[in-house]
Amino acid sequence: MSLPWFFALTAAVTFAQVPSPESLAHAKVLRAKALAGSSAMSIVTSLTTEVGPRLAGSEAEARARTWALNILSEKGFANVRNEPFAIDAWERLGEGAEIMAPYPQPLAVTALGGSVPTGKNGFSAEVALFDTLTDLKRAPEGSLAGRIAYVGHAMQRTQDGSSYGYFNEARTAGPSIAASKGAVGYLIRSVGTDSHRFPHTGALRYQEAIPRIPALALSNPDADQLERIAAAGQPVSLLIKVDSAEIPAAESGNVLAEVVGRETPEEIVVIGAHLDSWDLGTGAIDDGAGVGITMAALELIKNAGLAPRRTIRLVLWGAEEVGLLGASAYRERHEAEITQHVMGSESDFGGGRVWKVTADSQTEEGDQLFAEIARLLAPLGIAPGSNRQPGGGPDLYPLIAAGVPTLRLHQDGRDYFDLHHTADDTLDKLDAASLDQNVAAFAVFAWLVADSDVSFRAP
Amino acid sequence: MSLPWFFALTAAVTFAQVPSPESLAHAKVLRAKALAGSSAMSIVTSLTTEVGPRLAGSEAEARARTWALNILSEKGFANVRNEPFAIDAWERLGEGAEIMAPYPQPLAVTALGGSVPTGKNGFSAEVALFDTLTDLKRAPEGSLAGRIAYVGHAMQRTQDGSSYGYFNEARTAGPSIAASKGAVGYLIRSVGTDSHRFPHTGALRYQEAIPRIPALALSNPDADQLERIAAAGQPVSLLIKVDSAEIPAAESGNVLAEVVGRETPEEIVVIGAHLDSWDLGTGAIDDGAGVGITMAALELIKNAGLAPRRTIRLVLWGAEEVGLLGASAYRERHEAEITQHVMGSESDFGGGRVWKVTADSQTEEGDQLFAEIARLLAPLGIAPGSNRQPGGGPDLYPLIAAGVPTLRLHQDGRDYFDLHHTADDTLDKLDAASLDQNVAAFAVFAWLVADSDVSFRAP
Repeated sequence: MSLPWFFALTAAVTFAQVPSPESLAHAKVLRAKALAGSSAMSIVTSLTTEVGPRLAGSEAEARARTWALNILSEKGFANVRNEPFAIDAWERLGEGAEIMAPYPQPLAVTALGGSVPTGKNGFSAEVALFDTLTDLKRAPEGSLAGRIAYVGHAMQRTQDGSSYGYFNEARTAGPSIAASKGAVGYLIRSVGTDSHRFPHTGALRYQEAIPRIPALALSNPDADQLERIAAAGQPVSLLIKVDSAEIPAAESGNVLAEVVGRETPEEIVVIGAHLDSWDLGTGAIDDGAGVGITMAALELIKNAGLAPRRTIRLVLWGAEEVGLLGASAYRERHEAEITQHVMGSESDFGGGRVWKVTADSQTEEGDQLFAEIARLLAPLGIAPGSNRQPGGGPDLYPLIAAGVPTLRLHQDGRDYFDLHHTADDTLDKLDAASLDQNVAAFAVFAWLVADSDVSFRAP
Repeated sequence: MSLPWFFALTAAVTFAQVPSPESLAHAKVLRAKALAGSSAMSIVTSLTTEVGPRLAGSEAEARARTWALNILSEKGFANVRNEPFAIDAWERLGEGAEIMAPYPQPLAVTALGGSVPTGKNGFSAEVALFDTLTDLKRAPEGSLAGRIAYVGHAMQRTQDGSSYGYFNEARTAGPSIAASKGAVGYLIRSVGTDSHRFPHTGALRYQEAIPRIPALALSNPDADQLERIAAAGQPVSLLIKVDSAEIPAAESGNVLAEVVGRETPEEIVVIGAHLDSWDLGTGAIDDGAGVGITMAALELIKNAGLAPRRTIRLVLWGAEEVGLLGASAYRERHEAEITQHVMGSESDFGGGRVWKVTADSQTEEGDQLFAEIARLLAPLGIAPGSNRQPGGGPDLYPLIAAGVPTLRLHQDGRDYFDLHHTADDTLDKLDAASLDQNVAAFAVFAWLVADSDVSFRAP
């Protein structure tokens, strides 16, 4: 007797042993151990205390790599190594801004990452205010000659950080847009959701063949102040100063460590976080938290005495903040084994709890394993979202482009942009129990994928 | 027929018309008008936007006086004037601190107000950490030779700000105590309740005949960081830099305005706030809020077309932050009319709502009027406290010493020391409705006292 084909298919999907009961049991143990207390908080405490700020290409980032190599070796991981690469680094030497007229007073500002200097004494110019980047884009050619352009749109808090991409363009693309209209300087309301006098830095991207103009961000209260003063109707004159330096051929690096697979060690599940940070804070939420979470998850698996079928590789990415340079270097160096990368996920959205899991499964067996992962994450309060959604963190973009499937553990980021890229990104903002929930999720997912022979990649 | 004397007395106390029904009716109208929307927020917006920071003795404080004279004249008050006085002013030119060893990194610091400079390059020294000021006091003579002393006790939030007096001594008295044991520099955990990277400044008081050493405050997260690093057991070396200047015989001033009494104009009820601020923020909660509240209260009385029996005098005190210098100058200049000061009250605790009223009544009729004031404040959520408690704001201390009775409208200050003396003391932290509740309380009390002939002062 034979069943109709659709019965057979249903049976196959429903009863296939993906993952094995033993593998599932291990995942549950890992989950419980993480919630009972992981090493995540201790790792991020060590990094932010003993290294502190660690700007890409700086001597401090080098000390962070040394820190990482030491701690990963002490924890007994396999294949601990640094993969160096060269970058054109940028260094902040100082900045400032003052309203000169009509109401003289200092403003709280930060130079955007990559900003050219103004010269020692800075310069003053009249400000042209734009409500939005779209308005700036519509300004006529040459209309900003000799002026400082200001873009003031505010960013509202969201759980998933989804408005960052939109507002962020004022920071990344704005300087060259302003310069293309003749502006001599560029200023934005910080891309951030707090109302404290912390300006938010972050990388800008100058366009070729357009003059490079100094660019800074005002804190939200200072942006309010500038707009209030301008609303009174008199021309506003601003003095801006930026001192900065470019350091060609500076060294950065990715730091790697592994739990080696017992059956197919050449197949790789990549987890990790970026090791560099902006220079203003100590990089606790961005991205010390991710370093702690992913390293603690791998440690949990190792210390449980478990060897999965495949290799789990922790990558602590270098030079993320300045343009995903470590991600590109990794892609280039590991070109030959890219097709062996089974799945990737990065933790780079602070210390908030995970509330959703999505993945980029391209196969039926991948879908099935995703459903099992989701089932094991549900007790952590994590709901499944799409399993057809590439993502998983900024440092995975080059791997995604090469066809590597990803999984993303979405963290609650309502407070993330209060602190992001500010001096206030420090250890006191993190909560150990929340990190442990993240560790549990990372350990469950990484274990289940690595201990399976499931392919998520389209054949 | 005559009643026994104690019946007569009881009758007199119970039925005396203090205040008159008409006066009470006016007070209720003032209260309602304030709650419907006062000018307080608009006043503090104007001051903090058009002047911004206004350190005692600076050109900015002079601009604040000009601002005050203009706005008080525009509002049509009587006897608007500046009463200048000279002070030895202090100017901040810059500061910084870095951990040099074992874990090099910058720290967020502010020089304490009055700190001597370090010299251009600063100096580095080993830190001696003390948990409390008491522990520093117990350090043996000479034991801190060549070192930077650090006092780390934290301040918890309170509704009434009552712990400030205790913890504040680390800032005011600490530098000379440390220097007396041989310390070459002094550092404290900020006297503040936030966990942001805003160090809190404030005045220090050097003692005569003790070397004056540079003194700074760390933000709370930086104090945590320093203590974590020190707890690891290695000696901690710090570099500190302060650049500052003393400006002898700088000008400050008190700005006065009045609603003149209709019957006994020589009798004065003093309300007000201090006009100067620290230099880091724009002085919105300290004390732009008080300026807005008290000026709006007086404006409400004037615009209601009411002339009380006595004069209500608004004093916007100068140079409060650096040692109540305006208060001393006022006391000296007005010595001849001090006994005519019926009562005083200052608003200098931010923008939080009033929850309690206390007074310093020295007479039976004063007690009775206090009870009536309390009855009219009760609908605002204000409960009466002691009526035997001198207070009413720092700028009243010299008047209290001269026997002037005071009344204090106690504000909820749970968040006050999050912002106090930081760069984050800006307009966005204030709430208009909360200011209006304060205005209502000030208008009711000032009107009722000024419209009466009650004496609070012991005969």
